[in-house]
Amino acid sequence: MKINNNTMVTIGIGIGLAASLFACTPKKSSNSGGAAISKNAAEKVYVAPGKHDEFYAFLSGGFSGQLAVYGLPSGRLLRVIPVYSVNPENGYGFTEETKKMLNTSHGFVPWDDSHHPQLSLTDGKVDGRYAYINANNTPRIAKIDLKTFKTTEIIEVPNSGGNHGSPYLTENTEYLIASTRFSIPLPNKDVALDKMKEEVKGTISFIKFGKDEKMEVAFQLLVPGIDYDLASCGKGMSHGYCFLTSYNSEKASTLIEINASKNDKDLLAIVNWKKAEECVAAGKAKTVDGRHVHNELNESTHTVTSATIDKVKMLDVRDCEGALYYAPVAKSPHGADVDPSGQYIIAGGKLAAQITAYDFNKIVKAIQDKKFTGDYDGVKVLDYESVLAGEVKKPCLGPLHTEFDGKGNAYTSCFVSSEVVKWKLGTWEVVDRMPTYYSLGHIMIPGSGSKQPWGKYLLAMNKITKDRYLPVGPELPQSAQLIDISGEKMEMLLDFPTVGEPHYAVALEANLIKDKVKKIYTLEENKHPFVAKSEKEARVVREGNVVHVYGTAIRSHFMPDNIEGIKVGDTVYFHITNLEQDWDIAHGFSIIGANTSELLLMPGETNTFKWEPSKPGVYPFYCTDFCSALHQEMQGYIRVSAGGSSTPLKFNQGK
Amino acid sequence: MKINNNTMVTIGIGIGLAASLFACTPKKSSNSGGAAISKNAAEKVYVAPGKHDEFYAFLSGGFSGQLAVYGLPSGRLLRVIPVYSVNPENGYGFTEETKKMLNTSHGFVPWDDSHHPQLSLTDGKVDGRYAYINANNTPRIAKIDLKTFKTTEIIEVPNSGGNHGSPYLTENTEYLIASTRFSIPLPNKDVALDKMKEEVKGTISFIKFGKDEKMEVAFQLLVPGIDYDLASCGKGMSHGYCFLTSYNSEKASTLIEINASKNDKDLLAIVNWKKAEECVAAGKAKTVDGRHVHNELNESTHTVTSATIDKVKMLDVRDCEGALYYAPVAKSPHGADVDPSGQYIIAGGKLAAQITAYDFNKIVKAIQDKKFTGDYDGVKVLDYESVLAGEVKKPCLGPLHTEFDGKGNAYTSCFVSSEVVKWKLGTWEVVDRMPTYYSLGHIMIPGSGSKQPWGKYLLAMNKITKDRYLPVGPELPQSAQLIDISGEKMEMLLDFPTVGEPHYAVALEANLIKDKVKKIYTLEENKHPFVAKSEKEARVVREGNVVHVYGTAIRSHFMPDNIEGIKVGDTVYFHITNLEQDWDIAHGFSIIGANTSELLLMPGETNTFKWEPSKPGVYPFYCTDFCSALHQEMQGYIRVSAGGSSTPLKFNQGK
Repeated sequence: MKINNNTMVTIGIGIGLAASLFACTPKKSSNSGGAAISKNAAEKVYVAPGKHDEFYAFLSGGFSGQLAVYGLPSGRLLRVIPVYSVNPENGYGFTEETKKMLNTSHGFVPWDDSHHPQLSLTDGKVDGRYAYINANNTPRIAKIDLKTFKTTEIIEVPNSGGNHGSPYLTENTEYLIASTRFSIPLPNKDVALDKMKEEVKGTISFIKFGKDEKMEVAFQLLVPGIDYDLASCGKGMSHGYCFLTSYNSEKASTLIEINASKNDKDLLAIVNWKKAEECVAAGKAKTVDGRHVHNELNESTHTVTSATIDKVKMLDVRDCEGALYYAPVAKSPHGADVDPSGQYIIAGGKLAAQITAYDFNKIVKAIQDKKFTGDYDGVKVLDYESVLAGEVKKPCLGPLHTEFDGKGNAYTSCFVSSEVVKWKLGTWEVVDRMPTYYSLGHIMIPGSGSKQPWGKYLLAMNKITKDRYLPVGPELPQSAQLIDISGEKMEMLLDFPTVGEPHYAVALEANLIKDKVKKIYTLEENKHPFVAKSEKEARVVREGNVVHVYGTAIRSHFMPDNIEGIKVGDTVYFHITNLEQDWDIAHGFSIIGANTSELLLMPGETNTFKWEPSKPGVYPFYCTDFCSALHQEMQGYIRVSAGGSSTPLKFNQGK
Repeated sequence: MKINNNTMVTIGIGIGLAASLFACTPKKSSNSGGAAISKNAAEKVYVAPGKHDEFYAFLSGGFSGQLAVYGLPSGRLLRVIPVYSVNPENGYGFTEETKKMLNTSHGFVPWDDSHHPQLSLTDGKVDGRYAYINANNTPRIAKIDLKTFKTTEIIEVPNSGGNHGSPYLTENTEYLIASTRFSIPLPNKDVALDKMKEEVKGTISFIKFGKDEKMEVAFQLLVPGIDYDLASCGKGMSHGYCFLTSYNSEKASTLIEINASKNDKDLLAIVNWKKAEECVAAGKAKTVDGRHVHNELNESTHTVTSATIDKVKMLDVRDCEGALYYAPVAKSPHGADVDPSGQYIIAGGKLAAQITAYDFNKIVKAIQDKKFTGDYDGVKVLDYESVLAGEVKKPCLGPLHTEFDGKGNAYTSCFVSSEVVKWKLGTWEVVDRMPTYYSLGHIMIPGSGSKQPWGKYLLAMNKITKDRYLPVGPELPQSAQLIDISGEKMEMLLDFPTVGEPHYAVALEANLIKDKVKKIYTLEENKHPFVAKSEKEARVVREGNVVHVYGTAIRSHFMPDNIEGIKVGDTVYFHITNLEQDWDIAHGFSIIGANTSELLLMPGETNTFKWEPSKPGVYPFYCTDFCSALHQEMQGYIRVSAGGSSTPLKFNQGK
């Protein structure tokens, strides 16, 4: 450790703060968590039958691994998009077509922990093309197409021990970044844990998002082995940079809660990625092992393909002067948030009562002027005072994350004191406070990460739910609170429970995308190798012990709906095409006793159900999605004969 | 077919009705689906921050396989209870403890289609002990404990080709019934489908719910092989009977939408289960093959055990006079709903414009007086006029399902005309109509299936969503509408989207259970064989190639958090106990690259994560549920050495 402690402002943690870190017992008598409820709250959040919400909000699923779409201001759950976890509800991760989306270099992984949704940017503005979200446990980044609200691409991030500070993106979505939360030996090897400190390395990966709108690991920066936390990238004047908080500059590997909290300050990483690009172009990166899997959904074949890439370009930041600097940051920081102008980078410390604003212009000047106080593992540490824009006066306890309204105000969530503080960029004065329910984590203002936020609402995501809603046993939902920020004072509007554990959220104005959303898949464009585009094409083909059913579904029958000649020992693939071409007319498919999920088929889509019958008999199958008045009658039968029997293959094909 | 057509009232399906069966294009210009919105709707559905909803509503997940808990009147999703589908979010179906809950006679089944939640009754009143729900595809019934909101028992229903009309229950929850939707040869065998008509049989199973509050297949009735649909059981005067609709009296096995709609009337099954009990007691049932699996969660060991039962008692109704009668019912019926008094049984026909009320007293008398018009496969068919209480005058198109407010009114959902009609029991006059959004399926009034409904709200569950909410791609949520029925006229209050596909719902007043809900599992009661009840008990034990980690989690660390001496080729079981004893302090657990879901551990709970490392290296694990200000620091490392290496087993154990 070479951080020069002399330059640091020591923030003592008072006994009150330390004690309250674990205090979750309600201390306020008011049911609103201390907040006065806005007089017109009911009217403000009510979206009448048939009317639409004003914003799409994308809340991370956290330990659900998915991405949840809510309407604001109503707080209604519009959809859960399967991303990293299998979803038997629609066959995601079960069907022959989708299961490859969950391939990794560790094999098939049925779950992950999705943390930080982001929205694609053009010129620093939300463009409504894509959402992205990281997998925290088995490092990956996923892309969700906002025309179909489907996960269409997942790329694994190699040489990483955990992917938390991700997938923050640059002003034109040139790159998505991914930094290692848990630094590990690189390449990973058998190391005694008490010797690991000397071996651990971090990486900050730059995932290129090219003109083909596909992801690719462009290069990785090899950086000191501390634990990188959250991040954001510059815009406007700071375009070309990314900023990451980190913790555990102690490089502790046991009892981290104590051993990683010893230093008075942690480190903010300042990455000049344009400089890194130059170094990579100049051949300073090495090609190293970096086995990772890249999965893509082809929307014509409705099928995911999976490729493995073995090598990546790794640039040691010590070989690229100017690519990485550190600045001291308040103890155990979380968010690193760039304001809409790109000038200020805001970071708080969970164990501090301090919110720091860094000035990008001062950072540039301090680097030019070599205002360093030392180095950390060969990386220069900038003088705190030289890069400081200001510290928020009388902020709060445990500041976590800051969002912006685009009108010169910043809002910081405070975990320990459970409140949102509103303060002025430039004067650093707190102008309003809103108590929330307990253990406020992240907050979200639509478009805050862009140059043009929609500063109307703020969503607070609280970690404690307790008696906030009707009790539902030991396992509770998470809790969100919607706050009106359109006026001078914040107004509390609504509490609503959320699915999974939303760690982070983004939102966009509905008008930006609502008219571009896809309603059906056209049959003409369906290039699935086993499609049947009409009932006339429906058929059953035997190839040895493998049977392919080219099936169709349309209100209110399957074709074929009677199949004979299947034998025990066969593997039967039911490739079912939904022939409907009208929005919201889905069909489903399953067979009694099947050891897989159902198929849920959107109009024009083909998907495949694998079945291995184990006993002779008659097996019913049916439509699992109520499709019409005669849905209940939408069914069929498969006759299964003993292995080796001579029952001929037979099926009906319309009249 | 021996139904006497002379006694039937032929209901023609007009061209308009037939055409509208498939018409889903909005035909009304109003955004409310034609309904005027109540003036005070916003105030009526708004539940202010910190206030609780008035009702718990349990909506079936349909093709999600789960059970969703909503608060009413807010429409907020309070929880999704995993029942029949794996849930990587909390490890349900993945952990060593829970995966047996999805065992069946077909092996492990990761998905099902859950349709009809029911609530336990005592003396015909909702008692708040349990919810139950059927699996439609692989026939099963599940029990959900309303103290923990957990699935604690699942029993398979043997000799069934599909379990739709289930799990309707008797007035003291003596039995849960399960009837075959798809009749198949019994015992199932290899039969040519065009010969199947002669072989098919149905069963109506009586699942005993004993004083030990466990389920057991008491006996099955062997009944004619038509397709049984929905049901309900008698109460008060009709206690001892159950009533089931059916379709496909034609016994068609192909193009059922046409071939099962040929007869003018279908059959209502009237089961005298007390008579059936007598016959079983008199030895008239045969013991037959009926292999089925029974899974139970032990809440002390936190572990599911699974047992297989091979035989069941089967009573052929032809061997038990008086156990089963049929009555003609309007074509393609759906609901069979008993009013709170027990006197009236209401059935509609999806393909009819007819709602029929049968009078229980007349049924008893008609049986006594032998008012039969013929028989169907040996079962007597009652004369329609002799059992008729009345037909609703000018009802609607495609009546599906009727609920009751306990004040003498019935409400019927009409699929084709997309409306709720309110009518008077006794006079059969329609007194109000409420247009809903398109393709209204089922409706729900809290407590409707009991003697004492809470007649304040009606929830309409619509099959079509289309542009009802912000568009979210080809795959849309389902849609519910909340209607105030406390006054003379119905008032439309709120639209909200729902998860899965709710086919059916039940609800109860929150006050009945909210104070009884369990908040934690006590450590003292934890009898898990691998529990560590304190950090002192945390340890790692090797048994050959199997390693057991007796681990603990408490804010904000795991114990042990450093483990060495694990080798490639080992199978490692992490048995993690959450030592917290405070509500809503959950911890999670996962390891990078693991091929299973996370653990999500409620306070006092132990669960097991199986891991088979494939390469030497250092592997981070971490807490996946934000638990405290130092949650981010709650992590550890496992060192994996090569197979055959001599790295000794080592782990930390607190100080």
